[in-house]
Order: sequence, then C-alpha cells, then structure tokens
Amino acid sequence: MLDVDGVLTDNAVYVGAVGGERVEFKRFDIQDGLGLALLAGTDIRVAIISGRTSEATALRAAELRIDDVIQDPGARKLPALTALLEKHRLDWDQVAFVGDDLADLPVLTRVGLPIAVANAVPEVKAVAAYVTEAAGGFGAVREVISAVLRARDEYEAAVGRYLAARDGDDA
Amino acid sequence: MLDVDGVLTDNAVYVGAVGGERVEFKRFDIQDGLGLALLAGTDIRVAIISGRTSEATALRAAELRIDDVIQDPGARKLPALTALLEKHRLDWDQVAFVGDDLADLPVLTRVGLPIAVANAVPEVKAVAAYVTEAAGGFGAVREVISAVLRARDEYEAAVGRYLAARDGDDA
Amino acid sequence: MLDVDGVLTDNAVYVGAVGGERVEFKRFDIQDGLGLALLAGTDIRVAIISGRTSEATALRAAELRIDDVIQDPGARKLPALTALLEKHRLDWDQVAFVGDDLADLPVLTRVGLPIAVANAVPEVKAVAAYVTEAAGGFGAVREVISAVLRARDEYEAAVGRYLAARDGDDA
Amino acid sequence: MLDVDGVLTDNAVYVGAVGGERVEFKRFDIQDGLGLALLAGTDIRVAIISGRTSEATALRAAELRIDDVIQDPGARKLPALTALLEKHRLDWDQVAFVGDDLADLPVLTRVGLPIAVANAVPEVKAVAAYVTEAAGGFGAVREVISAVLRARDEYEAAVGRYLAARDGDDA
Repeated sequence: MLDVDGVLTDNAVYVGAVGGERVEFKRFDIQDGLGLALLAGTDIRVAIISGRTSEATALRAAELRIDDVIQDPGARKLPALTALLEKHRLDWDQVAFVGDDLADLPVLTRVGLPIAVANAVPEVKAVAAYVTEAAGGFGAVREVISAVLRARDEYEAAVGRYLAARDGDDA
Repeated sequence: MLDVDGVLTDNAVYVGAVGGERVEFKRFDIQDGLGLALLAGTDIRVAIISGRTSEATALRAAELRIDDVIQDPGARKLPALTALLEKHRLDWDQVAFVGDDLADLPVLTRVGLPIAVANAVPEVKAVAAYVTEAAGGFGAVREVISAVLRARDEYEAAVGRYLAARDGDDA
Repeated sequence: MLDVDGVLTDNAVYVGAVGGERVEFKRFDIQDGLGLALLAGTDIRVAIISGRTSEATALRAAELRIDDVIQDPGARKLPALTALLEKHRLDWDQVAFVGDDLADLPVLTRVGLPIAVANAVPEVKAVAAYVTEAAGGFGAVREVISAVLRARDEYEAAVGRYLAARDGDDA
Repeated sequence: MLDVDGVLTDNAVYVGAVGGERVEFKRFDIQDGLGLALLAGTDIRVAIISGRTSEATALRAAELRIDDVIQDPGARKLPALTALLEKHRLDWDQVAFVGDDLADLPVLTRVGLPIAVANAVPEVKAVAAYVTEAAGGFGAVREVISAVLRARDEYEAAVGRYLAARDGDDA
C-alpha cells in the first residue's frame, strides 16, 4: 500500500486555472512506474490511498494498472483500508505501507511492514521499520519494490520476466 | 500571516499559454497543507498575502480553508494588513509573519514575530527573529507551524485532534 | 540584456498537448521579478532576447514590463541586438549581457560587461567578466541587478524607492 | 539513439486533467537542444525511442528535428530499433545508446557504445562504457554529444559551424 503525495510524488501540487477551471498537476517518477511493472507475475498486489482527491492521482494510477485506488478527501485512511483488507481477506500483518506524514500514522502502526520515505516527518520515521534512501517522487517506491523483491529472493526472476517480455524474440 | 511566493511556493511561477490564454501554475507543498490543518481547533487564524494577483494562489487558499486571502498587484502589503488587523481587532504584536523578500519588510518590522524562510534575501533575514531551516515550498510553513505550536505547548494536542478525526472509530 | 532560457528560467521547457494543441510552460523566478522592479527609477533599460520563440517568454516579459523583447527562432542574436542598439543610440560598451550557452557568445564577446550564470557552459564562462553564484531561474538575474546597482552605488536608493512606494503612507 | 524518460527528461511525468482530458507534461533541457543542433552538418543521425507513448515526446522531438522517433507503449525497444537499423543499413556496432533503466538493457548490451546517465539504475551503469556526470534532463545528452564530437575531433568544427550560422554577417 502506497500513500500518494510525498511517496509517489515530490510532495507538491502544481495548481492553476485553465479556462476558468481549477487544474492541478502532480509529478510522478518514471522509474517508480517500472518498479510497479516488475510486480507483474508476483503475488504482490498494490493499492494506493490518498488523503486528497485528485484527478492526477486517478490518471496515473490507471496508467500504472494499480489494483486498488482509494482517495479520501478527509484523509481518513484507516477505515478505507480496513474495508479493503476485508474485501481481499487479508490481515494487517500481510501488508507493507509506505507513507510520509501524520495522516499515515494510524495505518503505519497496524501494518506488518511500516515504511517511511526519506522526506517523511519525524513521527512517521519513528514508527517505520525501514526508511528509504530515495525521496518520494525520486525513486522511493522503486527502492521499496526492489528491496521487497530481494528480501523474498524474487528480484532476479522479476527482472528476467520483465526483460523476456521485451526482447522481441516472440514479437 | 504568510507571504505566498517563496514561502508557500518554491518561489517560481510556471507560465504558458493554453488556447491563446495566459495560464500560470504554482507549486505548493503538501506537508505545508497538513500543517495548516493542524491549526484547526486552535485559536490561531491564518492569513495569506501576496504581492501578485494569481488564480493559483486563490485556488490553493480555498482548498486550505485559509481565513483571509489578500492579493495586491502592487505589493502594497502594509495598508492591506493594517485593515485586516483592524477588522479582527488585533495588534501587530499578536502577529507572526513569514516572508522572503523586500516587499515583506514593511510588515516584518512591525509584527511581534517576524520570520524569514531559508531562501529569504539578506535584508529579510536581518530583521527576522527566526529563520527556517526548510525553504519555501519545501516545508517552511510546516516548520513554522510546528515550532509555534510547540512553543505554545499545543503541538501534541493538535496532532492528537488531527489523528482522532481520522482513526475512523467514529466514522 | 538578458538571455531567457537558463538565465530567467531553470533552462527547461515543460512540453505537453492540451486539446490537441502544443503547450509549453517555463519556470520563472519571483525574486528575479522583484530585482527587475528595483530598476524602475534608474536609467538602466532592460532587454531580453531568446533564441527560441515562446509565448511563455512573451507573457512573462509583459508582466515584468521589460522594455524590449526579442525572440529569434534561429538564435541569431547578434543582428537583432545590433539593430536594438542602433534604435536606442547605444554602443556595445554600454551593455551588460547575461548568458549561458554558445548562442550567446557572439554577443558576449562584444558587450562591455559579459556575464555568465552559474549553469553556463565552459565557453561562456571563459569570456565572462562575472560569473553568478546563483543559477538561472534561481536568482541569477536578481544577483546581477543587485551587483550592478551596488557597483553604481545606487542599491540603497533603489530599495528605498521600492519600499517607499509600498509603505502605504501615501496610499 | 536516446531513451526519453530520464535521459532527455528529469525522469518525471507531470499529470493532470484539463477539461476532463488527461494531459501530461515533460521537462526537457534547453542545453540538450543546442547540443542536438551541433550535430547538424555531421554524419551523426539521432533517433529517440521511448517505452511510453506521449504527445510531449513527439512535440519536443519535432522541435528538435530528430530524425527518427519511436514510441512503443510496451517498452519493446529491441525489435523497433532492429527494424530502424535495417532501414538505414547500419550495424549495432555503429550505434551509441543512452539509457537509464532496465528497459534499455536489451539494446545497451548490443550497441557499440552503451552509455548510462548519472541517474541510471545499477544494472544499466554496469553494462555502460560511459556514465555521464550530468543527470538526465540536466545536460546529460549535451555531455554525451560534446564527448562524442571531441572523440571524433569534430567538436571545434561543429561549434564553429553553429556560430557562423548565427553571427549575422550574412543575414
């Protein structure tokens, strides 16, 4: 499970008006996207949950083929994720969560593998089992995915599958 | 009271034309936004004042539920803020102001708590009682809010209220 | 005289399509804008010249009330600036030019005060009399303006005029 | 041959919705653009290949007058580049490729001159003959072009042609 702002993005929102309509852009990292592609073929599912509602998040999630996308405008992440776990019949200790700010604390203190990005606030780092070297939006998610796959001894196989699907021999 | 450009943003404006119309985007920090949410339930009011007029500023201020938003195209901040204080029956020594550039000097030299961001010009840092470690648009406002709440011994309570509203027990 | 890309901007162009139409944004620095405002009331004129044609440049120049704006899609800056000097009856040795790349060399080797930004290519730094500490788009132009005004012993007066126009006593 | 994301860009995509339509921006470096202009008059051809499909890439490639532009949504770069080489009757050992991520590995291990940008993943740096000092989107392509031209002893001539076309004597 991934927080969005500050984890999949550089923790910023680019706001302006186009034709009188509010528009916001978010900055997503391309190497994070390839990391998520490495999970294809594993039994790891990905969910993202944001404490804001943003079309930018929905659009990027669709491109990345994220399994579950939750956006709660009140940053009430715990009830939403509790429902998600029930739907997939999963327990909290089967979950890794990557977060950066106070709104992630109620979830981070329940999951089996709480992870903080380099740019997380002190309270989040204090409860994390792992703090990434990379900042959110600059490869933090890729770092987490690689570390998890290596810990499960699945990294080489995942890279192999990714490359085999792209070498063109069976194009 | 918060200046906008260089305090709530990275001190840049992203300018372009869409359909023949001028459009500008500004980059706001998400952790600053959570900091402003921490002020809910305290008796601290927030005003932002900009020396430029920008729809981006108005849109972000609306999202953050800022109490007072002043945009003066001539960067004449002192008359605008004097009127604001009169409206709220406040004195200058009850005000903290966060600024970065020369246009903030007339206000910074009057308020009780003048604050400069890390990226402020030397003249602004020279009159500041506090200079943030974080740069504008990269958590400077969050740093100020946390420091003020801690100085008032209200930080733990504010975080507690924020989390209680999001743990879902009363959803 | 100021180059645009890499001098007034962070040397990038943000490109995308909106409604099937090409759109580009450029990132301009707000503290540079205040620096240009400090020149009001001095006898220093400002011209910007770009080797690309961009609506973003024209829009920002209009906001900054730049005296002369030249955009040449072939990056042929020398003929354009020669004509500009003739129009204003100025000599090359009365001109300071701030540049960053090879296209600026024909001009930099003619002006009285050639200036390179911190992010300039080696060839440009080699012919510069002054290399800024700040990078383009991050205060390089502000640094140049402050340095020029100080060298002319006009800095304090310029700041005084700027603040006097904003203290509201004569509003 | 140049990868796009992370090589010609800062490895990010800026995503938002305008009028209900998905829009993405990419950040390209202007000094890279001048580097590509230096290749005019040499016998070096340039191709760019992306593992994503983006109008931003197509628009920037058109501006830079790139000879061949390939965008494959499945990141299957090897078959596409094999066809390109056949079209131009070139061998792999006549090709330099600049990449940053796993999707570039099948190509990097075949070309004569494999190059990794500073921000490349370890697997890509491991197979590269040259790793740039500059990061993608911050001059990495300019660095490669200058290094290649110098290695061929063509750099001074290329700069000379570039400047001669812009000094205005034959305007």
